[in-house]
Amino acid sequence: MQGDISLGELAVRFGLGLQGEPGLRVSRVATLLNAEPGAVSFLANSRYRKQMESTRATAVVLGPENAAHCPVAALIDPNPYLAYARVADLLHPAPIAAAGIHPSAVVSMSAHIAASASVAALAVIEEGAHIGERVLVGPGCIVQQGARVGADSQLVARVNLYPGVQIGRRCILHAGAVVGADGFGFAPNAGTWVKVPQVGSVRIGDDVEIGANTTIDRGAIDDTVVEHGVKLDNQIQVGHNVTIGAHTAVAGCVGISGSTSIGQRCMIGGGVGIAGHLTIADDVVVTGCSLVSASIKHAGSYSSGMPTVETRLWRRMVAHLRRLDVKER
Amino acid sequence: MQGDISLGELAVRFGLGLQGEPGLRVSRVATLLNAEPGAVSFLANSRYRKQMESTRATAVVLGPENAAHCPVAALIDPNPYLAYARVADLLHPAPIAAAGIHPSAVVSMSAHIAASASVAALAVIEEGAHIGERVLVGPGCIVQQGARVGADSQLVARVNLYPGVQIGRRCILHAGAVVGADGFGFAPNAGTWVKVPQVGSVRIGDDVEIGANTTIDRGAIDDTVVEHGVKLDNQIQVGHNVTIGAHTAVAGCVGISGSTSIGQRCMIGGGVGIAGHLTIADDVVVTGCSLVSASIKHAGSYSSGMPTVETRLWRRMVAHLRRLDVKER
Amino acid sequence: MQGDISLGELAVRFGLGLQGEPGLRVSRVATLLNAEPGAVSFLANSRYRKQMESTRATAVVLGPENAAHCPVAALIDPNPYLAYARVADLLHPAPIAAAGIHPSAVVSMSAHIAASASVAALAVIEEGAHIGERVLVGPGCIVQQGARVGADSQLVARVNLYPGVQIGRRCILHAGAVVGADGFGFAPNAGTWVKVPQVGSVRIGDDVEIGANTTIDRGAIDDTVVEHGVKLDNQIQVGHNVTIGAHTAVAGCVGISGSTSIGQRCMIGGGVGIAGHLTIADDVVVTGCSLVSASIKHAGSYSSGMPTVETRLWRRMVAHLRRLDVKER
Repeated sequence: MQGDISLGELAVRFGLGLQGEPGLRVSRVATLLNAEPGAVSFLANSRYRKQMESTRATAVVLGPENAAHCPVAALIDPNPYLAYARVADLLHPAPIAAAGIHPSAVVSMSAHIAASASVAALAVIEEGAHIGERVLVGPGCIVQQGARVGADSQLVARVNLYPGVQIGRRCILHAGAVVGADGFGFAPNAGTWVKVPQVGSVRIGDDVEIGANTTIDRGAIDDTVVEHGVKLDNQIQVGHNVTIGAHTAVAGCVGISGSTSIGQRCMIGGGVGIAGHLTIADDVVVTGCSLVSASIKHAGSYSSGMPTVETRLWRRMVAHLRRLDVKER
Repeated sequence: MQGDISLGELAVRFGLGLQGEPGLRVSRVATLLNAEPGAVSFLANSRYRKQMESTRATAVVLGPENAAHCPVAALIDPNPYLAYARVADLLHPAPIAAAGIHPSAVVSMSAHIAASASVAALAVIEEGAHIGERVLVGPGCIVQQGARVGADSQLVARVNLYPGVQIGRRCILHAGAVVGADGFGFAPNAGTWVKVPQVGSVRIGDDVEIGANTTIDRGAIDDTVVEHGVKLDNQIQVGHNVTIGAHTAVAGCVGISGSTSIGQRCMIGGGVGIAGHLTIADDVVVTGCSLVSASIKHAGSYSSGMPTVETRLWRRMVAHLRRLDVKER
Repeated sequence: MQGDISLGELAVRFGLGLQGEPGLRVSRVATLLNAEPGAVSFLANSRYRKQMESTRATAVVLGPENAAHCPVAALIDPNPYLAYARVADLLHPAPIAAAGIHPSAVVSMSAHIAASASVAALAVIEEGAHIGERVLVGPGCIVQQGARVGADSQLVARVNLYPGVQIGRRCILHAGAVVGADGFGFAPNAGTWVKVPQVGSVRIGDDVEIGANTTIDRGAIDDTVVEHGVKLDNQIQVGHNVTIGAHTAVAGCVGISGSTSIGQRCMIGGGVGIAGHLTIADDVVVTGCSLVSASIKHAGSYSSGMPTVETRLWRRMVAHLRRLDVKER
């Protein structure tokens, strides 16, 4: 059930400034453009101020610099997007799955399932796996031998945990995520490849979110490590023995090659490729579709994504770049 | 069972010109190179004309400009690839799954399953989901609470529909596709990230095809929208609140960041990255591996993918590009 | 159970040189840095020699050029990584699943399952499928009508084989891999797209490894072919009618467009995009994040991935590249 709460209560609960009538009530979030009365919206980027000026929302969460322009009630905070996140979470709480094991799930006798955990239809939990308190193992998930899931984590649906991997507390893993598949390790042998056993595991910290169809390989010998608070979007590939530092956020379609270590609080843009055996410092930003082929030692913003131009012009630019080489010699 | 049909019947049924004996019969398609008698092939690109000149096919579907070169019977149409598609569909009809629910499927009492629908082994259909007439829910698919699938659509196998998403009519979703996972939305809070609830949904139009392991995130507040006739290849990532206009085709491995709006009838090449909050006009072509980092206002072809050269030469080109900066100052 | 073996036995079994006491025993592998007594480590790259000099491993597998620097026992081979792979495989043998069909699996009466094969929980094996000797069909795998899996292959978990695809012997397919989904084939028709039936199949040779969430499409008419010994990392997309030559290795996140033919023993770096209808020679190396947009006729190394620099500098480089065009005219 959605909440229904007064602006006064919201202001008190989250320590927000209030401009307008405290008794007004809101029951849901909406965009500035599509809001109807009863909804609360937000303005985090001043370029959308025009949309605010004609909004039908009952209230808008915004920063103090925009309060004077707000035609309706305002909930004011210097970090309006964060304040909005908290309001939205209150109004739209995630449903809580009932504890218990669905009769169609296949659960090993030697697995430990906390009494408060929920194991959904057609999930598989193998020997020696450990499912913590209030964990959700969604439909079709496969938790292999000895894997561990910490309290309050959610495997939303059809997630694979390979043998022995460890997931921390309050994590969310989306559909199709695969944690612990073999790293890509082969020794050359006279024109063929011999598989190198991948005997490490994967350790995921607390408060990590892993997007749909993202893959994180197990280590070759030591473990692959994702530290606390890391956020991984969809379709990211994390190679064996990578370390991702705490609170780093990685956008979709990024590939991180083996044995690379990424610092804390980094932001990696979508489609970035990162070569193997590199070290990336804390607080590094890499913009979208860049290739990181050398270690980055200092915090800052790095790029190599080439922006599109008209194809005709692009062909000339590429041709000229090739000619440079000739001219300089 | 495959069909077996005369060229005369094919010509009449699809309005094709016929050069050759109308009583000749074909039962299957084949490539020009590998065809045996009884097969029908096609020539859509004149550079394969040589292959046609020695084909053993019984007939070839081709354009009028190539008819004179055809050594066997010809079915003639100005759009030979389209004509071929129709002939192939007649000769190789997709198998139709028998209506009914496999006993191993887990179907909620409150789900609506049309009597003509087919629900395969180990599928899960949760509370309040709606499965339309003649829909195929293949093995291992998971349709979560309240999701809806329109008539004649196919979820081939192991497809995930998150709660509340809507799929139109005559859609095909391939294995591993995930529709409706949370968008990547986090508010920064003193060096950590706070999850922003993703309360929108996903609406997919009619006649949409979605490739294997493609992911389409649910909207943050409003819905993510894929309009009628859109074709998405494998391993595409569609961020929250993206809109993809009708009849746009997107090749594999493309990433589309949140809140971007793509026009109608666009063609997006493989591996393209598209930044967030952009608007792309109708009838835009983006060639493979380009980065779209700004809105595109006019129809046309756009590029930024850099073609490979020998690595030694490439190293010099990159070095020279860096020196340009110094020389110009 | 892990093995426990003397250095002397290892030297004899794998034909390695031995420097040190043959009676010393090892039971597991470890990295140079984290090894404890009882472990065997390896040095394949001289830049890690420092780590070796302080290792606590009982023995190190290394090349003759590094033997003099080794402070502990050494197993010596000119290809130390290969020798390590064999030692690791002996000490850490992959567990062998017990033969038999789990009662929760759904297996068609008309499927052939070898008596020595193992079919895990909630797997689906459809009509006419053929599962060879000692094959592992892991939990949640779906083997559709008429698909065939050769002896000693492993579908680790939640792998999809579409109807009719063929997997060779001793292959390993990781979680989420999809083999045989429809290729991306549509004929234009007055601003809309008409699906072209994809009637070919996929043939995978022997000793092929396919990574997590990798997708290989079925051919449009003829088959898509992956030859013996090919190694594919995670999240690779292989289009319809591609051929990948024997012993080629492809790193993660690569996209290979339709009808392209890649030679033998190639090495394709992570994130590479390869356009369609190309031919790539044997023994070609393509470095990470390159775009191959034309055929490559000669063995060698090719690149186009642009390395990151500071974003400020990058903006100037892009601007200058654009101005070149103006200046040259």
